[in-house]
Amino acid sequence: MLRQFFHELTIATRGRGLYEFTNGMERWIEENKFNDGLLTIYLRHTSASLLIQENAGPDVRRDLEAFFKRLVPDGDSLFTHAAEGGDDMPAHIRTALTTVNLGVPVCAGRPALGTWQGIYLWEHRTRGHARRVALHFIGE
Amino acid sequence: MLRQFFHELTIATRGRGLYEFTNGMERWIEENKFNDGLLTIYLRHTSASLLIQENAGPDVRRDLEAFFKRLVPDGDSLFTHAAEGGDDMPAHIRTALTTVNLGVPVCAGRPALGTWQGIYLWEHRTRGHARRVALHFIGE
Amino acid sequence: MLRQFFHELTIATRGRGLYEFTNGMERWIEENKFNDGLLTIYLRHTSASLLIQENAGPDVRRDLEAFFKRLVPDGDSLFTHAAEGGDDMPAHIRTALTTVNLGVPVCAGRPALGTWQGIYLWEHRTRGHARRVALHFIGE
Repeated sequence: MLRQFFHELTIATRGRGLYEFTNGMERWIEENKFNDGLLTIYLRHTSASLLIQENAGPDVRRDLEAFFKRLVPDGDSLFTHAAEGGDDMPAHIRTALTTVNLGVPVCAGRPALGTWQGIYLWEHRTRGHARRVALHFIGE
Repeated sequence: MLRQFFHELTIATRGRGLYEFTNGMERWIEENKFNDGLLTIYLRHTSASLLIQENAGPDVRRDLEAFFKRLVPDGDSLFTHAAEGGDDMPAHIRTALTTVNLGVPVCAGRPALGTWQGIYLWEHRTRGHARRVALHFIGE
Repeated sequence: MLRQFFHELTIATRGRGLYEFTNGMERWIEENKFNDGLLTIYLRHTSASLLIQENAGPDVRRDLEAFFKRLVPDGDSLFTHAAEGGDDMPAHIRTALTTVNLGVPVCAGRPALGTWQGIYLWEHRTRGHARRVALHFIGE
């Protein structure tokens, strides 16, 4: 019999960078004894995003950050929306280039992540924020 | 008892730009008295995309457009697919850099959007088009 | 009565490029006589991605490849993560710029794809790999 469940995580960031929360996800699945279903992860912000990426070492995350910093320069004179700081409009663009929602099948109590995949919140602002992530599970 | 529902919206665009349809989504949810579930939004095109972004003022949208126009220049000599106009291949690339599908939890009759989040159709062609968005809701 | 189903496809790639598997998806839907529901497609890798794009001719795919190759150059000196080859870090970035998960409504036995939309695995490494795609269907 299929049922659904809701939850919300708050992730405190300390400025720009990738924050893994795979464990927080898995803990919610375990605590509720979900076996099989579909997990939806939804970030309620426009200047941070969600990313599934390599969790083996820190250098991939460092290079991702370096690439996006070069691609979307802070304080670019192209931007008219600058009242909230030179990192604000880049944060919106970095969010548009990635995503705020993920759908992950859960099978036999485990999300279908590959061996090297971790689930990250990507903070795009230079200051820290409290980021709210809505979780939904439908299954059994 | 979980059930599912389908709907289709048609959004008439007037050329390149972001068209908010958060209200159209919410109206469908209200009319059908959906309480809790998962909403899937699916765009049936390859030269327009879906975006969840800031809906506070028009300057974020103007800057998003300016950034993507610079990142993916119309009429770039790199492109061989040019028979449908210099904006056609950039439209496919802009779609690839964003997305054509979104999954949003709905809780107590409201999509889990953050305070500043709106749901947009992003038209990437310079001419207007009638864009078809498939909606699916599973829940109760 | 809603039910759910799981499956896994393995797609053998022969190096960088777009590999359509719309048919593989549709075959799974037909074999199981799924009528209406939500299909989730989830790629279990961090150096390849999923893309819904034009399937009319090969030139759009060629230009997508050319654009991403220019945007994220192989062997860029910006990257510190280079031990696995000059195409490895670009593969992670190209994955971050696209996606590893898709949600597609299925209605009357057919995914809600538009006329020109095909579902692709995008291999970002120059060598071939066996890529695993998890499928989930919830519906009736």
